Amino acid sequence: MRVVRIPAEVRAALTGVSRPLGLVPTMGALHAGHLALIRRARDESAAVAVSVFVNPLQFGPNEDFERYPRAFDDDMVQLRDAGVDLVYAPDVTTMYPPGFATAVDPGPVGERYEGALRPGHFRGVATVCTKLFATIAPDRTYFGAKDAQQVAVLRRVVTDLDLGIELIVLPTVRESDGLALSSRNAYLDAEQRAAAPALHRALDAIVTAVRNGERNAQRAVERGRAELQTPMREVYLDVVDPRTFVPEPEIHAPALAIGSAWLGTTRLIDNEPIEATS
Amino acid sequence: MRVVRIPAEVRAALTGVSRPLGLVPTMGALHAGHLALIRRARDESAAVAVSVFVNPLQFGPNEDFERYPRAFDDDMVQLRDAGVDLVYAPDVTTMYPPGFATAVDPGPVGERYEGALRPGHFRGVATVCTKLFATIAPDRTYFGAKDAQQVAVLRRVVTDLDLGIELIVLPTVRESDGLALSSRNAYLDAEQRAAAPALHRALDAIVTAVRNGERNAQRAVERGRAELQTPMREVYLDVVDPRTFVPEPEIHAPALAIGSAWLGTTRLIDNEPIEATS
Repeated sequence: MRVVRIPAEVRAALTGVSRPLGLVPTMGALHAGHLALIRRARDESAAVAVSVFVNPLQFGPNEDFERYPRAFDDDMVQLRDAGVDLVYAPDVTTMYPPGFATAVDPGPVGERYEGALRPGHFRGVATVCTKLFATIAPDRTYFGAKDAQQVAVLRRVVTDLDLGIELIVLPTVRESDGLALSSRNAYLDAEQRAAAPALHRALDAIVTAVRNGERNAQRAVERGRAELQTPMREVYLDVVDPRTFVPEPEIHAPALAIGSAWLGTTRLIDNEPIEATS
Repeated sequence: MRVVRIPAEVRAALTGVSRPLGLVPTMGALHAGHLALIRRARDESAAVAVSVFVNPLQFGPNEDFERYPRAFDDDMVQLRDAGVDLVYAPDVTTMYPPGFATAVDPGPVGERYEGALRPGHFRGVATVCTKLFATIAPDRTYFGAKDAQQVAVLRRVVTDLDLGIELIVLPTVRESDGLALSSRNAYLDAEQRAAAPALHRALDAIVTAVRNGERNAQRAVERGRAELQTPMREVYLDVVDPRTFVPEPEIHAPALAIGSAWLGTTRLIDNEPIEATS
């Protein structure tokens, strides 16, 4: 496994590499969700690259960029064990040197929900991923379904900019009690951790309501909302088109139940697909 | 010479093509300026691609997108004679299908002068060029110095997005009386055509003033302004940093004298470098 720090080293390292090449972009602090993406990439690609970069551009001024978990040495052990060929781990001044000014703006798909709560977040995600895609030139790239709006944004960008990369999305990996894996779960204390699965139960309740015939989003969401109790504070709970993130007052599958809630100073997000029934 | 219309055909046509690959992006209506770019690409690259696409995204609502000159059959003859290997000529719905929403924003370098006069113009240029670069994946791309702010914008984008493409800029090709070649010169009537070289004379006067020791931009520009007479109507005449397009009140070479003027309903632009003297 090679670990490189600048785009020129990436290009040199990838000269003559076997294809197809799979890329798993990460912010490090790897958990079983990341490892599932890497395993899938390893299974179906001749070579696997992983990027490790905590991207300041996608954090707001009052967000957790500074305290976001970093575990570089432990991450490298896991990546080596997972059979990764190349790790690209640039530092911030390599990605954003003085004078850096270009932004990739994904448009309306990034404006609601997480985009509204985190102004500039999806521009930051779209910009850093465009850079990673340009540097590494993968054939495929792998993302977890947990960050569903990020997936919708990147699908838009990859299509619109003709990047020619297949975007592969794997199901959210969960703890046994349903909590979606997230590097931010490390922020939760014992009481918060015990309360955290309620968000997933709320989404499940929405999906169940729809499965039982409810087509009105407001009523379906109310069924979910009943699961969100103190100490959890709802931020949003809704049903959207999974491609556009436009809310669907009248639910037409395939749709997506999405939710976010605070536990103390940690904001969790999660989602559950609403599948078309035949 | 192959002429292809969609990204997948470009990728198929370029599989196994010799490298380095040079790309000359154009809006068609080819003139000797374009041909100089293609000749240079042909001289120094193993394969040459030319894109021909009149990009609606870089035209404002009251601009000349509809009447912009189109000469596809004649262009193809010239490109074949010039030894071009691949022509990418997408139609508008291939480039911008329904739902298209992503924009590449180059930031401050695209906000003054042409960017202020043509809101959205450089976002359109940056977006279409990012798409062309992603589709064709050239090693080098060639632009004329006449569109100097476009060059500054694309230098920013290529650097910031880690596109790994060398941007090569060739001097403006001129008529014998100094008028910069432009597809828009076709709009000029005989009287306007006779008056048109005044813009280049104005820029030359600025460069001469600086060469003779003038360091104050306002005074140097006044020397140029004296050349701009009826029927030409000045839009701007200034001295800027060629990388940032920030005006330089106190001129430090290398700098760039830039100008734009109306002749009837046609707006001309031009520029002249102010070289460092040893």
